[in-house]
Amino acid sequence: MNINYFMDLAKKEAKKAYLLNEIPVGAVLVDNTTNLLISSAHNEVIRQKNSIKHAEMILIEKACKIKQNKYLIGTSIFITLEPCAMCAAAISEVRINKIYFGAYDEKKGSLESIMKIYNTKNYFVPEVYGGIDETECSTMLKKFFQKKRK
Amino acid sequence: MNINYFMDLAKKEAKKAYLLNEIPVGAVLVDNTTNLLISSAHNEVIRQKNSIKHAEMILIEKACKIKQNKYLIGTSIFITLEPCAMCAAAISEVRINKIYFGAYDEKKGSLESIMKIYNTKNYFVPEVYGGIDETECSTMLKKFFQKKRK
Repeated sequence: MNINYFMDLAKKEAKKAYLLNEIPVGAVLVDNTTNLLISSAHNEVIRQKNSIKHAEMILIEKACKIKQNKYLIGTSIFITLEPCAMCAAAISEVRINKIYFGAYDEKKGSLESIMKIYNTKNYFVPEVYGGIDETECSTMLKKFFQKKRK
Repeated sequence: MNINYFMDLAKKEAKKAYLLNEIPVGAVLVDNTTNLLISSAHNEVIRQKNSIKHAEMILIEKACKIKQNKYLIGTSIFITLEPCAMCAAAISEVRINKIYFGAYDEKKGSLESIMKIYNTKNYFVPEVYGGIDETECSTMLKKFFQKKRK
């Protein structure tokens, strides 16, 4: 699987969010066998007027509809930011096998930063690879929040 | 606020799920000022073919649409089962002020049972009241899983 290629697609999704004045986080879901893209999404909290509409949640919603399956077994998710507890738990609920994320989130990151949610029992535990293309992913977020503060 | 009345409504939602062969969990959302019902939902993982369609997630989706607001400030959620990490974090994301839940969930309950998710920094922390009408709420779940095993 071409990790850089799919992380680039996730960054493109984040860029779309940035241009819409949404917190710039993007995600894509890929089939582990075919290496084909299943779905892509970005943060839509403002557009959908709903604080749970993180990129990952919208991605899962789309992918379950496409696959007509309550599970997304045999897939990998690429996200520009470490997922929060809600998204990390959702990823586990739908059995996504691998997580590749870009920037670490010191405020809400729930895989490595503020907690390690999968260390809790009774969770399906995906493989986790953090810090992929970290600088570029975090630069976009920093730029966004600097712009907001002005 | 009439806690028993709203927990009864949540139980009615759980009962609907039971009859549809979904894990019987129900939830209702109430306005703290007017004491009026905003929305109600039950688990729909099978119907929607999506493992993140827990009662709380559907409830939040409906309520944000009704209120046209990304936050649900000034509301209380009544749930027949202690929320999992995904739902507990989602409830915090939308700023629901109070959580009343029925049965404790030893497998995935993330307010008191397997973790205390709100003890982590950077979370909006709702008031939590657990064990409301616990016996009746947990009996319905036990009955469901006994039926499943047969």
